[in-house]
Amino acid sequence: MKRLITIVLLITTVSFTGLGQRKIVNLPDLPGYVTLKCDFHMHTVFSDGNVWPTVRVGEAFRDGLDAIAITDHLEYLPKKDFIPVDHNAAWKVAEGVAKEFNLILVHGAEIGRSMPPGHMNALFIQDANLLAVDSVMDAYEAAVKQGAFIQWNHPGWKSQQPDGIPRMYSIHQKLIQNGWLHGVEFFNSDEYYPLVMTFCKQYNLAVMANSDNHGVISEKYVPPVYTNRPMTLVFAKARTHDALREAMFAGRTLAYFKDMIAGKVEYAQPFFYQCISVSKPFFGNDRNIYFEVTNRSDIPFYLVNGVANAPASITLAANAVTRVAVSKKVTDPLVYDVKNVITGENEVLKIELKY
Amino acid sequence: MKRLITIVLLITTVSFTGLGQRKIVNLPDLPGYVTLKCDFHMHTVFSDGNVWPTVRVGEAFRDGLDAIAITDHLEYLPKKDFIPVDHNAAWKVAEGVAKEFNLILVHGAEIGRSMPPGHMNALFIQDANLLAVDSVMDAYEAAVKQGAFIQWNHPGWKSQQPDGIPRMYSIHQKLIQNGWLHGVEFFNSDEYYPLVMTFCKQYNLAVMANSDNHGVISEKYVPPVYTNRPMTLVFAKARTHDALREAMFAGRTLAYFKDMIAGKVEYAQPFFYQCISVSKPFFGNDRNIYFEVTNRSDIPFYLVNGVANAPASITLAANAVTRVAVSKKVTDPLVYDVKNVITGENEVLKIELKY
Amino acid sequence: MKRLITIVLLITTVSFTGLGQRKIVNLPDLPGYVTLKCDFHMHTVFSDGNVWPTVRVGEAFRDGLDAIAITDHLEYLPKKDFIPVDHNAAWKVAEGVAKEFNLILVHGAEIGRSMPPGHMNALFIQDANLLAVDSVMDAYEAAVKQGAFIQWNHPGWKSQQPDGIPRMYSIHQKLIQNGWLHGVEFFNSDEYYPLVMTFCKQYNLAVMANSDNHGVISEKYVPPVYTNRPMTLVFAKARTHDALREAMFAGRTLAYFKDMIAGKVEYAQPFFYQCISVSKPFFGNDRNIYFEVTNRSDIPFYLVNGVANAPASITLAANAVTRVAVSKKVTDPLVYDVKNVITGENEVLKIELKY
Amino acid sequence: MKRLITIVLLITTVSFTGLGQRKIVNLPDLPGYVTLKCDFHMHTVFSDGNVWPTVRVGEAFRDGLDAIAITDHLEYLPKKDFIPVDHNAAWKVAEGVAKEFNLILVHGAEIGRSMPPGHMNALFIQDANLLAVDSVMDAYEAAVKQGAFIQWNHPGWKSQQPDGIPRMYSIHQKLIQNGWLHGVEFFNSDEYYPLVMTFCKQYNLAVMANSDNHGVISEKYVPPVYTNRPMTLVFAKARTHDALREAMFAGRTLAYFKDMIAGKVEYAQPFFYQCISVSKPFFGNDRNIYFEVTNRSDIPFYLVNGVANAPASITLAANAVTRVAVSKKVTDPLVYDVKNVITGENEVLKIELKY
Repeated sequence: MKRLITIVLLITTVSFTGLGQRKIVNLPDLPGYVTLKCDFHMHTVFSDGNVWPTVRVGEAFRDGLDAIAITDHLEYLPKKDFIPVDHNAAWKVAEGVAKEFNLILVHGAEIGRSMPPGHMNALFIQDANLLAVDSVMDAYEAAVKQGAFIQWNHPGWKSQQPDGIPRMYSIHQKLIQNGWLHGVEFFNSDEYYPLVMTFCKQYNLAVMANSDNHGVISEKYVPPVYTNRPMTLVFAKARTHDALREAMFAGRTLAYFKDMIAGKVEYAQPFFYQCISVSKPFFGNDRNIYFEVTNRSDIPFYLVNGVANAPASITLAANAVTRVAVSKKVTDPLVYDVKNVITGENEVLKIELKY
Repeated sequence: MKRLITIVLLITTVSFTGLGQRKIVNLPDLPGYVTLKCDFHMHTVFSDGNVWPTVRVGEAFRDGLDAIAITDHLEYLPKKDFIPVDHNAAWKVAEGVAKEFNLILVHGAEIGRSMPPGHMNALFIQDANLLAVDSVMDAYEAAVKQGAFIQWNHPGWKSQQPDGIPRMYSIHQKLIQNGWLHGVEFFNSDEYYPLVMTFCKQYNLAVMANSDNHGVISEKYVPPVYTNRPMTLVFAKARTHDALREAMFAGRTLAYFKDMIAGKVEYAQPFFYQCISVSKPFFGNDRNIYFEVTNRSDIPFYLVNGVANAPASITLAANAVTRVAVSKKVTDPLVYDVKNVITGENEVLKIELKY
Repeated sequence: MKRLITIVLLITTVSFTGLGQRKIVNLPDLPGYVTLKCDFHMHTVFSDGNVWPTVRVGEAFRDGLDAIAITDHLEYLPKKDFIPVDHNAAWKVAEGVAKEFNLILVHGAEIGRSMPPGHMNALFIQDANLLAVDSVMDAYEAAVKQGAFIQWNHPGWKSQQPDGIPRMYSIHQKLIQNGWLHGVEFFNSDEYYPLVMTFCKQYNLAVMANSDNHGVISEKYVPPVYTNRPMTLVFAKARTHDALREAMFAGRTLAYFKDMIAGKVEYAQPFFYQCISVSKPFFGNDRNIYFEVTNRSDIPFYLVNGVANAPASITLAANAVTRVAVSKKVTDPLVYDVKNVITGENEVLKIELKY
Repeated sequence: MKRLITIVLLITTVSFTGLGQRKIVNLPDLPGYVTLKCDFHMHTVFSDGNVWPTVRVGEAFRDGLDAIAITDHLEYLPKKDFIPVDHNAAWKVAEGVAKEFNLILVHGAEIGRSMPPGHMNALFIQDANLLAVDSVMDAYEAAVKQGAFIQWNHPGWKSQQPDGIPRMYSIHQKLIQNGWLHGVEFFNSDEYYPLVMTFCKQYNLAVMANSDNHGVISEKYVPPVYTNRPMTLVFAKARTHDALREAMFAGRTLAYFKDMIAGKVEYAQPFFYQCISVSKPFFGNDRNIYFEVTNRSDIPFYLVNGVANAPASITLAANAVTRVAVSKKVTDPLVYDVKNVITGENEVLKIELKY
């Protein structure tokens, strides 16, 4: 066999990294913690998803994630004529592959009911089959007995809340009183719910971001519209299953999607300052002083509402150095609102550039 | 619920066309025929693939295909502990969706054996379960009885031919004598086998190109390395299931992958001339005459071995107009070899630019 | 010399087409006219631009344009300490190269004054030096004597109209009375001015779109934010300098930028219908009829305000086929507003899909 | 003025960073040195280039460079009919802008003659006009008197060496004896000359990589074919003009282009090890041990010629983590050749992965 045409591929930094490589997601650790990139909500052919569980491991590996949970529905099983029901099947299929890819696989399931209470994920369970019971409170209790972290999914989902506004009902209050609710999704799929910030701050719940993916991640989150799936950033003491679980129950999370971060100020503020560094002035003339701000993260930051005589707004592009010219007339500290770091229903992070 | 941040998407010609749109593949029809873009080899969770059958319909629709066959293995069923065996299951699941997406779904199955004879696809069958029999000749016969087009898959696959060279064994000769072999894959997955051109010309078989995809098309054929999956171009009298079948048995095909076309001269030559048009000269000076060649297809053509005083090589980029300057000294016809249109094991298409 | 490493480039349909190729811009002709893609406003080092005039020819060629005008300022000459003043220099430098690239080069110059009257381009002139006179009316007269088409540039430019609103002053009225004003820019650089539609319809002026580029086109109009520079589509009887001029004085233009078209209904309506074709229904069930709309242009169309029971909105993606499902309950004609085809200050094109 | 259509741009990590941002080039420092990214060869309208000098500053800033030299020809001045000759003009124009962009601007000029000696750049000069003399040796002497670093440009350029092979002539030997030759281009434009490695090692000259750009950087080095222009990496004691000069005379450089590094082992080896880190094994089974190699640089590394039972080749993709599975049978150290790190005419870097 002779080859008429030889095509040698140019492998470059922009090309597909292939199945063998894990993308580096440029997000900083916090002092004392490692930042784990996680997605705790996705489906497979074992409920209403369209892929085999190992596909979820491969996707997460290539996306640079540290942990995922496969959370097939316990009730909605449209493929059951072809695939017999075993609520632990996805876990069994994916577990070994996850180990080979150095991915933390969290055992999970989605407990679905009409609103209230809506849909909840039980994470860190041992046996999903025990959760498939008639009474939803019994299902939660079975999960909690297994040590589950309970996450309220997409509370403003329009199929269950047509106006898109999340509401706390008495059953949610009861879960909180029982200590049975631990996190709420701020980002889900391609939606987000600002009011979730109020719930999480009031009841000390973890702010979550997940894909809830049913199809193929790379077909849904397509650049340039999407640069990444929603992910929950968890600040853990180590990159292990147990440290991840501890951090989530402690509520040490931020929600990340596209160019937005949402979460509590106590995590958002140090996270922002870990992303950027401000240089000393490198040049000056009669009118201006020039300095540089280096943003080594994948997240651009949009600084707005500058003080008098300072730039009204500054975009700190991701993975880039931004040159800032400041008038010599500026005397106030260079404080800004970071438009895309959301710390409350109507609140964004305030920061200062110190050069 | 107030939205703090509004992000309106710019929808542009380069953005993802979404689930609602079929890509236009720019490939010309031939006089008297419509060019159908087809992929006759792919797998799902019902054998060793990793996706649900409807995923194959969506992928094909977005890729601009006209027809596909899902061809799950009859013998290799690694997921059978989770999914009970029914060789017609993928067909049943995908059939209705294909109609809604205006896609011709060809009923198929892959009959696999070690080499010889290797793997064969039976296409245009009615009941795949009848092909799951011990004797391979019985399997072929059962397929032929259903009116099947039999395609020899990846004859140079290194798992079965370690040197990558396809070989005709006596069983293949017997199939040909019986009239039971109708096409051979020249392109499969990301491989190709030049010797297949010799087989197809000698025994009058259709030249085929298929993806043999097990995972996700968009994750395997990633730009810029890949612009498209392998596809068989079928020159049919109409865009219907039956006209497709007629054209394939008549051998009216070309194999297309990346920037390569392979097939018989009788189809490759008119196809090339349908892709391009040559302008009259638009300018001249003492030395040169200038004209333009418009290539309205998605396939670039690499013209080489130019005559004396003419450009030695010309690249006719896809979907572009190429400016050509020819010396006034040239007297011969402007003939070229088209390096990437393969018409034999060691042969490429010869063409002439007439301006 | 031995080469240790050989890197063969994969040339594909998505790769850079190089200097030798003209991109095909997919925009239809109108019945009886050829659609010329034009940019009548740009600068070089001979005024305040940063490139040599031949760069403008190469850019236009690669962008698939048919005609350009280089329109250096007559008054603003910040490089004159290094480059002596000759207002015809750019024309002299570029003229020969334009011929070799089959590009219509229109001789032009920009006559600049503070507002009113602002900036005007004189197009189709013979000698720019004769326009460099003190009195602006004398400058216009000198241009008109040479047969110039006078275009009002960026009438809402914030440097001259801080609120961004174009205004007709008495000098503009006088120009119109004299027949000395022929077109107005609706799109300039990355701005647009809706009120220009009112001016153009009231005084029968050509609607224009130009880049006003000073730097490098490919650095300013970068995908995915920009898919193309602003361009004026001129509907000419032939692809020649004189036919272009005739069409512009006749006002047969549309303004095109990103995913927007602006212009008079008499051109916008046939242009839209030349872009798309609607299939017969290919499938139906109890509830819906399915048909396809093929959009062979580079412009997506956003259809909104659908009638009762029809889809409320439909995006006809560029170079794609859109599948439309319409309820059998729909009895009205399928009329839509095309949100991105602007036919007046507060008016968009209305169309009907006939399947 | 009412805006009919509002288009808000999504600014994401993949979008154009705009004029205000400097790209971060991910290349590590060496212990004790800062790695300066430099391009010491480019042209403007003041010789045969096509852009104004300030364009070169903007390009370099956006490309993340630390230093450039504009090196217009002293003899080849095709635009002199339009632009009067002043060999210091580009320097005067660009100097102030470079300061505002925090870019080190090296004053330079290109001394051109036919081969031998070919073309040489004089870098770190004060007055280019003094170098425009008839005798080439007088020109070099004038440069050296100003403290110039003399770089031999493109020694294998086919216009001067039709076989592409660089040759040392007696005039080059004389320059070396005088101490008047300090560096040689290994990469120029899109070419490279392996034999330059032999010259540089034999005579202790700096290995250089430069663009020699005449047009627009972003139009020549277009992804995916090109990820970056050629650049000289200089290992300096500080990011200053004088520290840069000291490092170049000391020969502390590597040449970088696309996915290739060339230079002396003493710099290439520590550079490679600064780019990557190897994890402890994260998993093992009966057959294999799994570990990860993190490559935080923009350069992929192609490891080949693995020892028995180890992977024959490993691609360490840029900015990614590569998962490596090694058989438990491997007993030798995991040594590899790095195919794209060139340390001699026929020699590549040898490294070891220690996990």
